[in-house]
Amino acid sequence: MPATVTAFEKSPDRGRGLARDMRVRWACEEVGEPIEVQLVSFEALKAPAHRARNPFGQIPTWTEGELVLFESGSIVFHVAERHPGLLPAEPGGRARAITWMFAALNTVEPPIVERQNAILAEGHESWTRERLPVLEERIRKRLAELSAYLGERDWLDGAFSAGDLLMVTVLRRLSGSGLVEEYPNLAAYVAHGEARPAYRRAFAAQLAVFKAAPAG
Amino acid sequence: MPATVTAFEKSPDRGRGLARDMRVRWACEEVGEPIEVQLVSFEALKAPAHRARNPFGQIPTWTEGELVLFESGSIVFHVAERHPGLLPAEPGGRARAITWMFAALNTVEPPIVERQNAILAEGHESWTRERLPVLEERIRKRLAELSAYLGERDWLDGAFSAGDLLMVTVLRRLSGSGLVEEYPNLAAYVAHGEARPAYRRAFAAQLAVFKAAPAG
Repeated sequence: MPATVTAFEKSPDRGRGLARDMRVRWACEEVGEPIEVQLVSFEALKAPAHRARNPFGQIPTWTEGELVLFESGSIVFHVAERHPGLLPAEPGGRARAITWMFAALNTVEPPIVERQNAILAEGHESWTRERLPVLEERIRKRLAELSAYLGERDWLDGAFSAGDLLMVTVLRRLSGSGLVEEYPNLAAYVAHGEARPAYRRAFAAQLAVFKAAPAG
Repeated sequence: MPATVTAFEKSPDRGRGLARDMRVRWACEEVGEPIEVQLVSFEALKAPAHRARNPFGQIPTWTEGELVLFESGSIVFHVAERHPGLLPAEPGGRARAITWMFAALNTVEPPIVERQNAILAEGHESWTRERLPVLEERIRKRLAELSAYLGERDWLDGAFSAGDLLMVTVLRRLSGSGLVEEYPNLAAYVAHGEARPAYRRAFAAQLAVFKAAPAG
């Protein structure tokens, strides 16, 4: 029985692959782990059946027999641990790849989500227009540091890993802002991730959901 | 040779144990892993020697022979993987503890850091006073969800784990705000973590640094 992964029934990003189920879909495509996707409406996210899977009412979740997990980082790690391809076998490289997973989610993503909150949740507030440049400077600081580290590397640390997978999806959340494009090596890095066959299959799968039931 | 962990030379929290080295100190105390702490000034954080350890110029880092790690979540995981006591041996329980590690850092901590940024980095901005209640509602949403899940449990999932260690340190970042106290079971959960002997030893060690060189 393949594991069941939850995703939005109506993707608020109109099929651009920015929701967090994309991370799990991509990881599973990289390693050949089959999944079944269960679509969840916004109302059902807050209902007890989904809260039992994830107390915070978010997607994605992972249900595999008795085991229920949530948090895209945790699910990607779970998939990465049991197949070769997303974490190096050598202990030092493995620990460094895990460091990059946490760096993507706990250092690079938070200011990006702050900007998204400013636009989506505080877009109508009087302060948002004046405040956006402050947030964009906060993001640029992280992007500049990441760009300086990355230099001419293809991936963050040797071969492609779960750290790259999460970092690319985090940077993609800036699509349309022009911010990543200010750092040509980061833009190339994202494009390099998006060119992977596993990424393309995962992207097509989530896009097919949007095409079947376009967001209102 | 024990691993070297970096921490702030002058703790901006005046010894309240809110900096992220506390997470690593506590994890090491829980499992009996010895560490050497290297204090880093704010200027040195941005210098090449520290950037070589962490491209984002943050503490804590972990240096153990050739291996250099950063991100408190990653270091806590590295410590947890090689000693019993912070991750269950049973695979399902282990995966769920890892889910809680990511939930602490990627779902609960970001709105708390947003509030901290509002106070520390945007405290002088015209919008901050009006905006703080919006941020506090965003935090309350997560706290209410966590509180509803926790119920009368002692810890998030069975025995104390690295997930609890990170969650308690994340909730402690709200010290003084009164927000955690609105949810008595969360306040009791934090107190339960703070009462652990390993926590107390780690707290005393970071407080000793502050007492030796009080922040200006």
